[in-house]
Amino acid sequence: MKRNEDLIVGIDCGGTNMKMAVIASTGEILSAKIAPIRYDQSPEKVIQKMAQNLKDFLKGSKFKKVRGVGIGIAGDTDQTQGIIRFSPNLNWKNVPFQRIFSHWIEIPVLVDNDANCAAWGAYILDAKKDCRNLICLTLGTGIGGGLILNSKLYRGATGSAGEIGHMTIQYQGHPCACGSFGCAESFIGSGGLIRSAEEGLKKGLAPVLQKLVGRSPKTTIEPKLLSLAAEKGDPYCQQLWKDAGEQLGVVLANCVNIFNPERIVLCGGVSKAGNLILEPALHTLGRRAFAIPAQTVKVTISQYDEKLGVVGAGLLFLEESHHY
Amino acid sequence: MKRNEDLIVGIDCGGTNMKMAVIASTGEILSAKIAPIRYDQSPEKVIQKMAQNLKDFLKGSKFKKVRGVGIGIAGDTDQTQGIIRFSPNLNWKNVPFQRIFSHWIEIPVLVDNDANCAAWGAYILDAKKDCRNLICLTLGTGIGGGLILNSKLYRGATGSAGEIGHMTIQYQGHPCACGSFGCAESFIGSGGLIRSAEEGLKKGLAPVLQKLVGRSPKTTIEPKLLSLAAEKGDPYCQQLWKDAGEQLGVVLANCVNIFNPERIVLCGGVSKAGNLILEPALHTLGRRAFAIPAQTVKVTISQYDEKLGVVGAGLLFLEESHHY
Repeated sequence: MKRNEDLIVGIDCGGTNMKMAVIASTGEILSAKIAPIRYDQSPEKVIQKMAQNLKDFLKGSKFKKVRGVGIGIAGDTDQTQGIIRFSPNLNWKNVPFQRIFSHWIEIPVLVDNDANCAAWGAYILDAKKDCRNLICLTLGTGIGGGLILNSKLYRGATGSAGEIGHMTIQYQGHPCACGSFGCAESFIGSGGLIRSAEEGLKKGLAPVLQKLVGRSPKTTIEPKLLSLAAEKGDPYCQQLWKDAGEQLGVVLANCVNIFNPERIVLCGGVSKAGNLILEPALHTLGRRAFAIPAQTVKVTISQYDEKLGVVGAGLLFLEESHHY
Repeated sequence: MKRNEDLIVGIDCGGTNMKMAVIASTGEILSAKIAPIRYDQSPEKVIQKMAQNLKDFLKGSKFKKVRGVGIGIAGDTDQTQGIIRFSPNLNWKNVPFQRIFSHWIEIPVLVDNDANCAAWGAYILDAKKDCRNLICLTLGTGIGGGLILNSKLYRGATGSAGEIGHMTIQYQGHPCACGSFGCAESFIGSGGLIRSAEEGLKKGLAPVLQKLVGRSPKTTIEPKLLSLAAEKGDPYCQQLWKDAGEQLGVVLANCVNIFNPERIVLCGGVSKAGNLILEPALHTLGRRAFAIPAQTVKVTISQYDEKLGVVGAGLLFLEESHHY
């Protein structure tokens, strides 16, 4: 029987739902629940609903008392004040998340960027402490990054560090949603991949993908479908993944030359393409990065993808709970 | 009167000479000397000569006994073993610098990459501890980088971290000496700038520079001369610095998005172009990086350029001397 003092809650706030889990200090998930969440109300109401969801979850579980809660959410966060400074997805600006949340449920709270939480989760679950320096890249619609340096989450001056998705790899490249040009995300974010696939379809270059999509315009083109098409022999989709792999490899090489980490862990929807993207990425990494750090780093796709955010958020609270 | 126990020696090994200084723990230089050094002998002989130079320097000064010596040298170093793993400039490979040096002069030694030493020097001298995170870029023939993160020099898994000069900013760009393509160094290293100037001369586009160079083929084209030409109104050189500034700005924006530092300090020959390169760089930084970290960072050209390497090497020894 776990002592309740050792238990924490991790919450991963996504665009349509929040994942909650009671977690042991080992990272083991003891109880978990997913609750829908809508962001079409004021931040105050949304956060009140989140607190209520957590209350209901704990009430329904056998774990009535936990030590605290770590919450991961997309956006630029001020962890020291518990403020969501800016979340473009949620259209939030300077929301005092921690204050509102704690008003409805009296429990110590850490709020952090979701990629930071995923990085801490990857550090504990994937790296199993065989390393001191780990970079985690969340490859999805956006590309997030989290930096574990000298065994600590690195946040920088204002908690904004780790935006590897907005590292420029082609400064004369096309515009990125962030206002810059040629960012990693503009190449290998799923939006970029899907746009590229749509171009191929229009030009009639992707026959297998065309078949999978069918005539229904309702089939959503997702990275998963692009992987399937490539595996089934679609030449356009095969080239698309090869290019994406090369671009990811440039990002990895930059990370290796800059951080010289023991581990780089990839997660998120785009990483599910597996060797379609990883093989060309590793090839490019080997060609571009300095030899010793390139030989030192181990690049893997996370084994724990779905869990990283929620487990990482909880364990990050635990790691830093002397602050709360 | 300083107690001798508080004194250290810093050494900055350049391509043609070694700078040595006795340094107080405040960073104050108490005595300094430059000795020529030639690398055309075996590493053993070169390092023996270096140790002899240090002996002679200390004998000639009033500081007979110092606590230890920090040595900065270009190349990939294993600081824990005191080995120069690879120095392309010196053509050294796996040279046990610390062992050889200590054989000739019995004194605790730290050997580190010269850009790491400069970064530590900039952290102490330029930043005066008003920050926890500082990136130092040495802009010369090569572009080096040193990372101070959470008030410590960050070295990564094998001591190779910080190679910001070999961050790709244009992955389909031209080849870099390191074997990759479109690295920062290939754009704004002095070699790239000089090549670009020579092209302008050949095409007759740089009349003021042409005048400064004269008809003598012996005048070496250096960044200093390119600054002078730009200041005297040469349109080609003005554009050259504007382009270099933009490229530097891309590098700065990447550093800001990734590290979110309080400070970025520039040093080295190319940084002496001052506002010719800094102004367009800051403009680009503002356009490309995320707003909050971009507003937070202070980017300056070091006030202590010539001293950074030697003072940083000594103080880095002091900072880490519990290891020695």
